[in-house]
Amino acid sequence: MTSVAAYAAPAAKAPLERTTIERRAVGEHDVLIDIKYAGICHSDIHQVREGWGEAIFPMVPGHEIAGVVCKAGPGVTRFAVGDRVGVGCMVDSCRECDNCRAGLEQYCTGGNVMTYNGVGKDGRPTYGGYSEKIVVDENFVVRVPDGLALDEAAPLLCAGITTYSPLRHWQAGPGKKVAVVGLGGLGHMAVKLAHALGAEVTVLSQSLRKKDDGLRLGADHYHATSDPETFRALAGRFDLIVSTVSAPLDFGAYLSLLRTDGALVNVGAPEEPVSLNLFSVIGGRKTLAGSSIGGIRETQEMLDFCAAHGIGADIEVIRADQVNEAYERVLASDVRYRFVIDAATI
Amino acid sequence: MTSVAAYAAPAAKAPLERTTIERRAVGEHDVLIDIKYAGICHSDIHQVREGWGEAIFPMVPGHEIAGVVCKAGPGVTRFAVGDRVGVGCMVDSCRECDNCRAGLEQYCTGGNVMTYNGVGKDGRPTYGGYSEKIVVDENFVVRVPDGLALDEAAPLLCAGITTYSPLRHWQAGPGKKVAVVGLGGLGHMAVKLAHALGAEVTVLSQSLRKKDDGLRLGADHYHATSDPETFRALAGRFDLIVSTVSAPLDFGAYLSLLRTDGALVNVGAPEEPVSLNLFSVIGGRKTLAGSSIGGIRETQEMLDFCAAHGIGADIEVIRADQVNEAYERVLASDVRYRFVIDAATI
Repeated sequence: MTSVAAYAAPAAKAPLERTTIERRAVGEHDVLIDIKYAGICHSDIHQVREGWGEAIFPMVPGHEIAGVVCKAGPGVTRFAVGDRVGVGCMVDSCRECDNCRAGLEQYCTGGNVMTYNGVGKDGRPTYGGYSEKIVVDENFVVRVPDGLALDEAAPLLCAGITTYSPLRHWQAGPGKKVAVVGLGGLGHMAVKLAHALGAEVTVLSQSLRKKDDGLRLGADHYHATSDPETFRALAGRFDLIVSTVSAPLDFGAYLSLLRTDGALVNVGAPEEPVSLNLFSVIGGRKTLAGSSIGGIRETQEMLDFCAAHGIGADIEVIRADQVNEAYERVLASDVRYRFVIDAATI
Repeated sequence: MTSVAAYAAPAAKAPLERTTIERRAVGEHDVLIDIKYAGICHSDIHQVREGWGEAIFPMVPGHEIAGVVCKAGPGVTRFAVGDRVGVGCMVDSCRECDNCRAGLEQYCTGGNVMTYNGVGKDGRPTYGGYSEKIVVDENFVVRVPDGLALDEAAPLLCAGITTYSPLRHWQAGPGKKVAVVGLGGLGHMAVKLAHALGAEVTVLSQSLRKKDDGLRLGADHYHATSDPETFRALAGRFDLIVSTVSAPLDFGAYLSLLRTDGALVNVGAPEEPVSLNLFSVIGGRKTLAGSSIGGIRETQEMLDFCAAHGIGADIEVIRADQVNEAYERVLASDVRYRFVIDAATI
């Protein structure tokens, strides 16, 4: 066991504060990672505030982790001390179900282990990336390619893979018209990735406030959803809409923007049920779907793709003691486009 | 113009009564069809009662039409007098949009013409199959193969194609586990077709009342959805669920029965919006989709498939003057499994 400094919420909805947690001893297949940066994901806030259900406290959030291996267990074969690595939303899975065997650990039916607010196979709660160090089985660690800066790479471990995976699964690419709903942490990555994949990209945002950013990030078009004309002008246009927002949308209106056989894929998750008229999907054989992060193999593929295309997250690096203020700014959509904690300040 | 006898609802929610309507003169590319049988579809009742919105009256319902060509326009090339033919839910479309060109006339973006409760290109309301004769452009007429009796073939024109199309699109076949929700007119066709396509078929019905029928029709398993144990026992089982019911379901419960990447496809259409928690689709990358009838080419393919596999609808032939009583029995689920009007009694 090793004591490391961390930022934790002692109870639901409480502000985060500096504390000390124990990390397990480095096992046969584990690496000890010296965390350099940890991104702040909107879901950290959902979970600290128990918006998605009862949670485990104290909670050390953080599942966008970039760092450097500082110790490797004797059985580790894929990493060595000094390697630049990342850890995302999962630190383990059953490894035996069909999904795990297919590299879809995010859909593990045996039950995967979330990086924080989870329970490890040792029965102990997991603690996330807002900390100095973390111990992770090498099979749930990915390599950060040399071309990517660690601070800009950290958000790729959730915001990057969460948008990359559905873009690939629903075949965003040349000749495809893709809309991204919301230009926040996930949305700005979706725009960069869809553009790099070769799709024609449209941002659908509440207002035109971030239009210049959207176009700079790679969007071809930018429309305000507060303007009813948007829904008239774009009716039947898109092959794929990726919704990154957690506010409940008027799904009928968004589905009307799809072509026949188009898909509206949700990676944002409203806390409350949404209302849907099924005629919205019956006409045009449309799909309302969801997608959750991505598997470990696909996460590595995404990082390699980002390195090849010079894609990192647009970030604002903060000190650890600014985390509570940062949460408020995330909730106010006042971040362009991801806060990243400099772990040296923890 | 030709006067023909028909059964029509003179106003919304009114009982149907015998009347006389005018059919257009047989044009260059038209065939005049001597209707032999017309199926009664649940959607006839929805439309007569304006459950799906404002409708056109008087209304002659009926979009499951089987008959014999008794006259052909000079430009007709595909049919001759004496041919056994069928007409389904559409009698025309724009023929120019991408969907029409792809054989997806049911999703025509230029606006297709429904067999009844529609407006033809001549600006006149369309009247359906509860009548002696109908005039239809040959491009919207399909051939009933010799192996199929006309009475058992009639319901295939809607109930058959409505279930065949999504079963094919979502690749029901050997190695796939398919559930059919509801064992009514559509459901009993879905079971027969999914079984013939080689899938493992499960019926999910409110009770076990029709279990013997379900197994006889080709189901491998039959479960009551009124029993909570059904949802525990079948969790994560199906690749595809086809819902044929128009009652609003607990979609979260049904989505939990899907495997990763599974699809719940609605061909039944509740009149009211349904409630959906998006976590139901995000976990497991699941799809909630819809499907509407099928294209003309696919309808012919379905009829040929049915003939090759000896599949007709299970029917109860009635006299035209029994139609109002039949509507009540459809609403009470008291039909196994499709009423078909003997048009000789009109």
